[in-house]
Amino acid sequence: MAFVNEHYLKLAAGYLFPEIARRVNAFAAATPTAAPRIIRCGIGDVTEPLPPATIEAMHKAVDELAHRETFKGYGPGTGYEFVRKAIADGDFRSRGIAIDEDEIFLSDGSKSDCGSVIEILAIGPASRGGNRIAITDPVYPVYVDSNVMMGNTGACAIDGSYEGIVYMPCTAENGFVADIPDRPVDIVYLCFPNNPTGAMIDRPKLKAWVDYALKNRAIILYDVAYDAYIRDPSLPRSIYEIDGAKDCAMEFHSFSKSGGFTGVRCGYTVLPKALAAYTASGERVALNPLWTRRWNTRSNGVSYPVQAAAAALYSPEGRAQVRQLVDFYMGNAKILRDGCAAMGLQVFGGENAPYVWARCPNGMRSWDFFDLMLREANVVITPGAGFGACGEGYFRISAFNSRANVEEVVRRMKALPTSAPVGAARV
Amino acid sequence: MAFVNEHYLKLAAGYLFPEIARRVNAFAAATPTAAPRIIRCGIGDVTEPLPPATIEAMHKAVDELAHRETFKGYGPGTGYEFVRKAIADGDFRSRGIAIDEDEIFLSDGSKSDCGSVIEILAIGPASRGGNRIAITDPVYPVYVDSNVMMGNTGACAIDGSYEGIVYMPCTAENGFVADIPDRPVDIVYLCFPNNPTGAMIDRPKLKAWVDYALKNRAIILYDVAYDAYIRDPSLPRSIYEIDGAKDCAMEFHSFSKSGGFTGVRCGYTVLPKALAAYTASGERVALNPLWTRRWNTRSNGVSYPVQAAAAALYSPEGRAQVRQLVDFYMGNAKILRDGCAAMGLQVFGGENAPYVWARCPNGMRSWDFFDLMLREANVVITPGAGFGACGEGYFRISAFNSRANVEEVVRRMKALPTSAPVGAARV
Repeated sequence: MAFVNEHYLKLAAGYLFPEIARRVNAFAAATPTAAPRIIRCGIGDVTEPLPPATIEAMHKAVDELAHRETFKGYGPGTGYEFVRKAIADGDFRSRGIAIDEDEIFLSDGSKSDCGSVIEILAIGPASRGGNRIAITDPVYPVYVDSNVMMGNTGACAIDGSYEGIVYMPCTAENGFVADIPDRPVDIVYLCFPNNPTGAMIDRPKLKAWVDYALKNRAIILYDVAYDAYIRDPSLPRSIYEIDGAKDCAMEFHSFSKSGGFTGVRCGYTVLPKALAAYTASGERVALNPLWTRRWNTRSNGVSYPVQAAAAALYSPEGRAQVRQLVDFYMGNAKILRDGCAAMGLQVFGGENAPYVWARCPNGMRSWDFFDLMLREANVVITPGAGFGACGEGYFRISAFNSRANVEEVVRRMKALPTSAPVGAARV
Repeated sequence: MAFVNEHYLKLAAGYLFPEIARRVNAFAAATPTAAPRIIRCGIGDVTEPLPPATIEAMHKAVDELAHRETFKGYGPGTGYEFVRKAIADGDFRSRGIAIDEDEIFLSDGSKSDCGSVIEILAIGPASRGGNRIAITDPVYPVYVDSNVMMGNTGACAIDGSYEGIVYMPCTAENGFVADIPDRPVDIVYLCFPNNPTGAMIDRPKLKAWVDYALKNRAIILYDVAYDAYIRDPSLPRSIYEIDGAKDCAMEFHSFSKSGGFTGVRCGYTVLPKALAAYTASGERVALNPLWTRRWNTRSNGVSYPVQAAAAALYSPEGRAQVRQLVDFYMGNAKILRDGCAAMGLQVFGGENAPYVWARCPNGMRSWDFFDLMLREANVVITPGAGFGACGEGYFRISAFNSRANVEEVVRRMKALPTSAPVGAARV
């Protein structure tokens, strides 16, 4: 008799975004006149066309596959050297950070990597030889759910939290930057610019995290999917800007939001050769060879035309086009941020991130405001509570949209019956 | 202190193909005059250009990404409906097999799927609530290694076998088709046309497997990556041609060898809604929703231009072009098969599969013959022993090459000092 992975049965409800899609579809079906008016600012999906440099590179790569002389079959599992070199040069060495090509692993996106990386770490809960895992609240759901599926947690409590995870509350009080835990943990997920709150960490705080990890031989899983959106040059764009980080951190990168690759699918992970974890008996095991082995065994790498497109992002034209794209979305973020502020909402993010994070008006709960926005404004946002208990009472609004849509969203939000100043009585 | 997944440390040596690459590179470096002569018939990588229908579809899809009106961002995690419909129609419904679109999961290749699917099944060895896993010997290494990494096996023995796996010997005596085990197992990996032996299963034997699985509530993981190469119309191209298979089998498909997608990366898995596994307390759990949840949580699906290329394989032009490609490689297989036979070798496969499987001459061991072929003929083959203990004394030779190369390989093999009839004394 085949046995199922029972850990899946612990998962609370559906994954957030399918649940949002379900509610939107239900509303659209029930209210066909409103359906064409719906503007989607929920899931952080880009809307603008790909940079021309990537289009050109993909056409060229496709043509190579059309001729025997230039045909490409299986590539290296972790990515072609031309891409890994472009990344190492463009994102690290040009900025004074020594990262080798074989510390870079190309993938079909950082979502996959964030979920897969725990496979090379101990499986099971801390109480049975696994790792003590620290996760921020609110958080990108993939970190939590992938650990639940692997059996690294206990059951789900009524508030949606999982037994065995060390939750690190991120609130308005700490600027949505997690405080160093008061007890040792082994694996820490950090994401800056943060999804969902749009918060950024400064260099001293990131150094404190690196120092903590080195002291506790913990590993930081550092997600920088939105690094292209950092405007303030004093803020760290990579954890490897901090001394010692190569001994304690992996870093997850995405081309989804920089190059608009949400449908093209490509990202990469940096796993330094210095990074190690330990056996139960305390023996040090370098993780780079394990991750290499995992890639070679489980994958044949990323589609060749996609790799060509990724490399094109690092050409002078590609870089300029990415900058333009990011500037455009950041212009949207400013409009949304200002619009929410003008409504009297307490607003966060949107300055070094494409997400604006705001408190729901009049003390409303997240899903209630989601439903109101959908029903009254026909605008899809993401309920903060979908990202964790500390997200309750907030919502996330995404800057990934056309300018006209973003301006229309602000107009409709201002016209909402609830748009009285925070704290004011609801009429 | 972060703990490592110690199961990785059980893995015997490197993954087979990187080990072959290492030996070939070492030989080429040490013998630069021979290096340009090397012909690679090791890894089963296609050599011919992509079907024109797929080239056209990819160009069109790339152009769609270049314009806001037709831009595609995140797609459905399990693949666009237009591709899943093309597959369900083309590979199943047109052949009288009722498979729904939501039983089809598009992926970046069947290698990934074969490795990932065990994540929704119980984790750990059978002795601790996991599944009893039956694997053929010889076998495609991914099935074994992915189970080792997940902790579903014990340690590696000196002969390369893993404690806890039920090995099913495939030998010349049983025509390289595994016999039904004499004890109950829970998960069974079967692959037909077989990689590496090129063997095919007939309908009665496949029915016996389905009946066994139904009786034992076991699950068959059925890998048909090479189904396009089946010539004999009496042989089953899908396990779902057998009554009851939807209650006990998943099926893994690849476009790597049909459409030449080894560098494009696409395949799909069929997971019928009727398929279930059980909790420790005996509760039945349908696996289709779990696999859907796994996809939504861990991936954002396959690159859009790649999905467009996959769908193009099902157009009338695409089908004709695939047939032509497969015919070409099967012509190679015949030349290799005839060549090996003319050398007096005992030959298998190559009739419904792109792989010829032959006994090494004069009782040589697999890696010794590999080294001899590399050194004397400058031809890369795959040592049978790399696929398991029962592969010792055999080699696999791949039909994926140009016609000129294949003919040259046969010439060089015939000129080998060892090419005396099997059993003859070595001079």
